[in-house]
Amino acid sequence: MRAAGRRPDELRPVSLDVDVNRYAEGSCLARFGHTHVLCTASVEDRVPGWLKGGGQGWVTAEYGMLPRATDQRTDREASRGRQTGRTQEIQRLVGRSLRAVTDLKALGELQIRIDCDVLQADGGTRTAAITGGYVALAMACRHLQEIKALATWPLTTGVAAISCGLVGGEPRLDLDYEEDSGAEADANFVLTGDGNLVEVQVTAERATFSEAQLLALLALARKGTTDLAALQQQALKRR
Amino acid sequence: MRAAGRRPDELRPVSLDVDVNRYAEGSCLARFGHTHVLCTASVEDRVPGWLKGGGQGWVTAEYGMLPRATDQRTDREASRGRQTGRTQEIQRLVGRSLRAVTDLKALGELQIRIDCDVLQADGGTRTAAITGGYVALAMACRHLQEIKALATWPLTTGVAAISCGLVGGEPRLDLDYEEDSGAEADANFVLTGDGNLVEVQVTAERATFSEAQLLALLALARKGTTDLAALQQQALKRR
Amino acid sequence: MRAAGRRPDELRPVSLDVDVNRYAEGSCLARFGHTHVLCTASVEDRVPGWLKGGGQGWVTAEYGMLPRATDQRTDREASRGRQTGRTQEIQRLVGRSLRAVTDLKALGELQIRIDCDVLQADGGTRTAAITGGYVALAMACRHLQEIKALATWPLTTGVAAISCGLVGGEPRLDLDYEEDSGAEADANFVLTGDGNLVEVQVTAERATFSEAQLLALLALARKGTTDLAALQQQALKRR
Amino acid sequence: MRAAGRRPDELRPVSLDVDVNRYAEGSCLARFGHTHVLCTASVEDRVPGWLKGGGQGWVTAEYGMLPRATDQRTDREASRGRQTGRTQEIQRLVGRSLRAVTDLKALGELQIRIDCDVLQADGGTRTAAITGGYVALAMACRHLQEIKALATWPLTTGVAAISCGLVGGEPRLDLDYEEDSGAEADANFVLTGDGNLVEVQVTAERATFSEAQLLALLALARKGTTDLAALQQQALKRR
Amino acid sequence: MRAAGRRPDELRPVSLDVDVNRYAEGSCLARFGHTHVLCTASVEDRVPGWLKGGGQGWVTAEYGMLPRATDQRTDREASRGRQTGRTQEIQRLVGRSLRAVTDLKALGELQIRIDCDVLQADGGTRTAAITGGYVALAMACRHLQEIKALATWPLTTGVAAISCGLVGGEPRLDLDYEEDSGAEADANFVLTGDGNLVEVQVTAERATFSEAQLLALLALARKGTTDLAALQQQALKRR
Amino acid sequence: MRAAGRRPDELRPVSLDVDVNRYAEGSCLARFGHTHVLCTASVEDRVPGWLKGGGQGWVTAEYGMLPRATDQRTDREASRGRQTGRTQEIQRLVGRSLRAVTDLKALGELQIRIDCDVLQADGGTRTAAITGGYVALAMACRHLQEIKALATWPLTTGVAAISCGLVGGEPRLDLDYEEDSGAEADANFVLTGDGNLVEVQVTAERATFSEAQLLALLALARKGTTDLAALQQQALKRR
Repeated sequence: MRAAGRRPDELRPVSLDVDVNRYAEGSCLARFGHTHVLCTASVEDRVPGWLKGGGQGWVTAEYGMLPRATDQRTDREASRGRQTGRTQEIQRLVGRSLRAVTDLKALGELQIRIDCDVLQADGGTRTAAITGGYVALAMACRHLQEIKALATWPLTTGVAAISCGLVGGEPRLDLDYEEDSGAEADANFVLTGDGNLVEVQVTAERATFSEAQLLALLALARKGTTDLAALQQQALKRR
Repeated sequence: MRAAGRRPDELRPVSLDVDVNRYAEGSCLARFGHTHVLCTASVEDRVPGWLKGGGQGWVTAEYGMLPRATDQRTDREASRGRQTGRTQEIQRLVGRSLRAVTDLKALGELQIRIDCDVLQADGGTRTAAITGGYVALAMACRHLQEIKALATWPLTTGVAAISCGLVGGEPRLDLDYEEDSGAEADANFVLTGDGNLVEVQVTAERATFSEAQLLALLALARKGTTDLAALQQQALKRR
Repeated sequence: MRAAGRRPDELRPVSLDVDVNRYAEGSCLARFGHTHVLCTASVEDRVPGWLKGGGQGWVTAEYGMLPRATDQRTDREASRGRQTGRTQEIQRLVGRSLRAVTDLKALGELQIRIDCDVLQADGGTRTAAITGGYVALAMACRHLQEIKALATWPLTTGVAAISCGLVGGEPRLDLDYEEDSGAEADANFVLTGDGNLVEVQVTAERATFSEAQLLALLALARKGTTDLAALQQQALKRR
Repeated sequence: MRAAGRRPDELRPVSLDVDVNRYAEGSCLARFGHTHVLCTASVEDRVPGWLKGGGQGWVTAEYGMLPRATDQRTDREASRGRQTGRTQEIQRLVGRSLRAVTDLKALGELQIRIDCDVLQADGGTRTAAITGGYVALAMACRHLQEIKALATWPLTTGVAAISCGLVGGEPRLDLDYEEDSGAEADANFVLTGDGNLVEVQVTAERATFSEAQLLALLALARKGTTDLAALQQQALKRR
Repeated sequence: MRAAGRRPDELRPVSLDVDVNRYAEGSCLARFGHTHVLCTASVEDRVPGWLKGGGQGWVTAEYGMLPRATDQRTDREASRGRQTGRTQEIQRLVGRSLRAVTDLKALGELQIRIDCDVLQADGGTRTAAITGGYVALAMACRHLQEIKALATWPLTTGVAAISCGLVGGEPRLDLDYEEDSGAEADANFVLTGDGNLVEVQVTAERATFSEAQLLALLALARKGTTDLAALQQQALKRR
Repeated sequence: MRAAGRRPDELRPVSLDVDVNRYAEGSCLARFGHTHVLCTASVEDRVPGWLKGGGQGWVTAEYGMLPRATDQRTDREASRGRQTGRTQEIQRLVGRSLRAVTDLKALGELQIRIDCDVLQADGGTRTAAITGGYVALAMACRHLQEIKALATWPLTTGVAAISCGLVGGEPRLDLDYEEDSGAEADANFVLTGDGNLVEVQVTAERATFSEAQLLALLALARKGTTDLAALQQQALKRR
């Protein structure tokens, strides 16, 4: 039995609150159970050097975790003087996922930076970052549209992400930290609003897995991201 | 006239919310107007190397600002690979201020780390960090007391801090970012619950200042920290 | 049509040469077409601090690329003072993949470090690193067995990896750099000798992809890693 | 009783020797007792990027300490790869203090860098750096005047600094290292030639302090900086 | 007696294989016994900032060692975050030696970077890097000549280098690692094709040495570099 | 003709002042014309980790240059976050040279660190550092002898160093910066008090050189270091 009586294919309570930062062009506090990730979208009118003059924009992401986001305090990356491999891996994944639904030409020579900062972590921070990051990105695009800085809408579809894993042989959706720690395999799936795949990452932790298990995990993820896509739409409308 | 009709000796709306992090031994979200600082206190059972075996504890602080805490996004210190001088200056000040009211012998060989992370910045982040950091520290001490890890209460008195400055010749309490940017001089005062001084920092920005002006600023700060001390007591009781 | 008349499900010419380094406990030069990765396995009799005294060993990997491994020279990471996110992501993947087939308890308190250095890169360096790294690891284990440093054989099965991708809508095995640059999606699969999955990573580059396409890529990878497993066995026997 | 029979309001023997470096546009070796700080002013014809084209100049400072300036050798910051928080705090203070008496518009688009290197440290190095740094700065300005690079004299008044503190309850001027180590509170005051305040920094070390004690320390500092201002004038004339 | 029956004035078996990298404008794998150094020459059409617009080119070198090039694995410099002093010393020497035979004006505003990566180390890696680096440089120049990017041939003569040392009082040529570890003094000589000296570095390790011994070492080096120059010419012709 | 009418084989005015730092166990301000290097010797009772328990000591050196030691200000290494290759090369040379005359077993498990800080630079800083560093080292040994911390005297002989070079074809001793900048070749020689060689470094800058020229430079250096050895003895006696 899962904590709080959750079914294997059930998300934790999810909330996506927008406009949580008064300066950012877009912002969203994504909460998946006890996992809280603050996402902001910052628009800059200069693109990275290698894109200059090419008439296209860029979307990139950074990720950080407050030292006491976790049960045991971890060292602050700024004071250690370098980001861990895990941090870099996550921020690359978030950036890639958001670019997959962005028409960079339509964006024009603008850069949107998505900052995802984990205030509290209980598993699934990278997928919460993608799901909340999309909302922040969409709000920033809406802002650009309102100030007439865009010719056409640059987001081709929505994108959401969820983790799942094999625990005691059972495929489960949206693992919390305790489940994740004991999982045989864990997975992160990123899907678009129209059900296509953007990114699949499945990793054997305690046991290798079969093709059938991969498909079972994907089925769970498809269900989860469908629900998340609906919540994203509500959050964007609510504003 | 100040924004929102504030009087020169009036604080912005201040709130100190406790228990905002489920893992930390103590936590407080300090809000001074639009300035929001999340403070956590983490207890560790090992002291820095140079204190080992000396029978006394340590209190230290770290400070960070989310990239989009400010109107213009700033680079993430973790990705730049070093903390700025400003960050280091602030975290040294916060640590010193909290140690000034801590009996390190009474604490025993424990270290309490106070992490102050600015979610949104509108002036006065370092003084909010001290004021909220004290609440987090006190809660961590209460936790230690509850689990019988302390022989005696280690905090000798309370401590709170506030900024003030000379704006257009007028001494003002609790400057917001816009006031701070145009101030002739700005000051940070740290005072104990019994009205003594812990730290005085006054800096000429656009004009030097006189002894009389220094005293006027101090009078404002005394009033402000008295109010803050009351709010700290309420926050600690509320729990 | 692919370069050199390759069929979509055909590997490039692959060679796995062992004993290419006179000092390492195990070594393998893995060549996949023009991609050349030198893999060495170094045995150390001390494990990382967090494992000390636990009676189990560790396998870890590092990855590097010579500056002129690529068509355009890239800056040396040692002179830039930090490893890129890509490098860290790859070395974490290689380490995870090799640990998935290692019984760390059977290894005892030893650490084996796999260094994978890319002498020349034409796509697929990370999968070549895993495939060659396994050979180096197995040789180091054999060395440990010969000197009676192991009670039982610590490798539970073999492991090999291959990249594939969607190019012009067609699923293709073992992409070279040119194909990879133009692929709609690219994938890396890590499989064990008995056909189980260790790691699945599929990324949309120019277009999202469907579940059917994911399965088509997996089928290619299964064929490719079966061939690679046979080559690994030959390489290990040849010695 | 203080070392060498000093009265509580008495400076240590102070000397300010100019022209101690044959390359710098201005230089001064400031000696306060056994504290020796070598200050050079270097004129550069380019300002920091954010000031370019604005028609105003900049004054900045850097601070360093030779490894054996102190009783116990400290590690060289260059070999540790980062400046300590203390170093950064001091160099920011020195720069701010000197800019407070500089009309940056009158300077024109030039930058003057003040390097303050502590050859030997016996307390009060930062205030010696400000006091000597001003002399170096003034000499560099005189040099610029002589070569007709200035339209008007850019220094609005002089500036000097001194430390003081509470030792055994007694306010004392110009603490040496031993006094500083045992002080209840220590303070640094920066004053202009006409008696205004530029910076006030008072820190409780072993005990908090009262407003009356703050004023007593300020009175000492006012006396000390008046004497230092006279010595600065002599040094500048002597040349 | 030396290993493998070598005479005191005898080189180890040396091979210089060219075109070992398909991307570099010039490349050479230099093997001196078990010492293997992979040298590539990369042509770039931009010179360092301080040379821009001066009409002359630049030749520079970088040096690295694979972690398991040596008997005991050494930490990867990229993961340690800085190059050792030894690495920097060597790459400066290689760059200087190659520039000594290059007419930088004849090269025009091009930069040639020589990367020397040690795949396996058994003493004499820096001299192998110079010897092989020259071959890679000459091939890159030939490539530039073939594509008509050079008005005149920029190499004024050849250059080769060899180590030697005093072992048990006996001057020996081309020390391997074991000899080097026990040598009283070791030396690196860099000579041009016409017998002139480019660089002399002799270091007392276990005993100081006399002028006569210096001359004996130089005589050995002269013999060795004459042989190496012949091998370089053969390698360049063979292509 | 050389500046100030110097003959080709004449040193600049040299002074070696001892006891210039009140904390260091040994200290010497070495002045060669306008080159001023402050050398301190610091005794520590712990050796580097790899020597622990081996019953022998260590001598090491660090080198730094104040930012305005030179005609054009250079960036502070501590603020750039890394030491240059030049700095590391020099400090390795100084350490090696001093260890060549130290019986590390006689020293016992102590470490002596020699800090050489260039206050003003006009050529020849590394040789001044060795020459002055030896005096500081000898004074520290004398101090250890006086406090009975040494069983036997650990310095086997003296050591001094000097630069020389070929300028306009003429071999010259002790180049100043201007001569050094235009030299065809420059050299640093380190010799013991009894005339043996410790280190020879000769580098072609604008032209390669012959064996005869190498010997001419060595003859100059021998004369120069003989004079320096006498000055070192006087400095040590004077105390």
